[in-house]
Amino acid sequence: MQNAACIFCRIIKGEIPSMKIFESDKTLAFLDIGPLSKGHSLVIPKHHGAKLHDIPDDQLHEVLSVAKKIAIAQGLENYNILQNNGRIAHQVVDHVHFHVIPKPNEQEGLGIIWPTKEADKGELQRLLEEIRSKM
Amino acid sequence: MQNAACIFCRIIKGEIPSMKIFESDKTLAFLDIGPLSKGHSLVIPKHHGAKLHDIPDDQLHEVLSVAKKIAIAQGLENYNILQNNGRIAHQVVDHVHFHVIPKPNEQEGLGIIWPTKEADKGELQRLLEEIRSKM
Repeated sequence: MQNAACIFCRIIKGEIPSMKIFESDKTLAFLDIGPLSKGHSLVIPKHHGAKLHDIPDDQLHEVLSVAKKIAIAQGLENYNILQNNGRIAHQVVDHVHFHVIPKPNEQEGLGIIWPTKEADKGELQRLLEEIRSKM
Repeated sequence: MQNAACIFCRIIKGEIPSMKIFESDKTLAFLDIGPLSKGHSLVIPKHHGAKLHDIPDDQLHEVLSVAKKIAIAQGLENYNILQNNGRIAHQVVDHVHFHVIPKPNEQEGLGIIWPTKEADKGELQRLLEEIRSKM
């Protein structure tokens, strides 16, 4: 399933060139041309969908194995795997993509802000019941 | 394969309590007790390994499907999937874990700093050949 207006679908079809690292029937991986660090790559399911929950399970099974292959090929020890859903969560292209971002030093790669909150145990327990009831 | 000293392996064994959302033979998911936002959850392969590249492929296939289930159960539209490898890349527990982090607004959830660099096309092309030769 592809979307004619989607830049990543056009890359998959070969209408737009890309720096391909890996390709199978379900998955494509290529270098990010606006990298956060040397080797920053993207792994995408070929099935078009804007967000993770739009992609059928069988189109997702290979994604992490491919990300792993890319990390191993580059001999990475420090790196982040990131997949953003929604503008507010930093998603720019509306076709699910997993970033493999090498973290060679403090300055390069992904910067993370981690605003942990104090969690109320009772609230967590209620939330847990609620999520469980919907799984 | 588990590690007696690992806090997540101890959670898997039931030696330490956790707020379990999902469990199968290969995968466990539970609420993060130091959440970045309401519903912040962790999905882990039961196979012990510090980093993504330490986990066998067959132990990874289910992870994203479980993350997806958690997003759907919470009705999330905006969220980040994040997996950190190495201290410098913000990893705290040395057992592979995928964060599912709801992003309800600008203040809560994951904060991201995105220091994009200008990439030289020739350098990218050389890097591509190098990575490809090792895949």
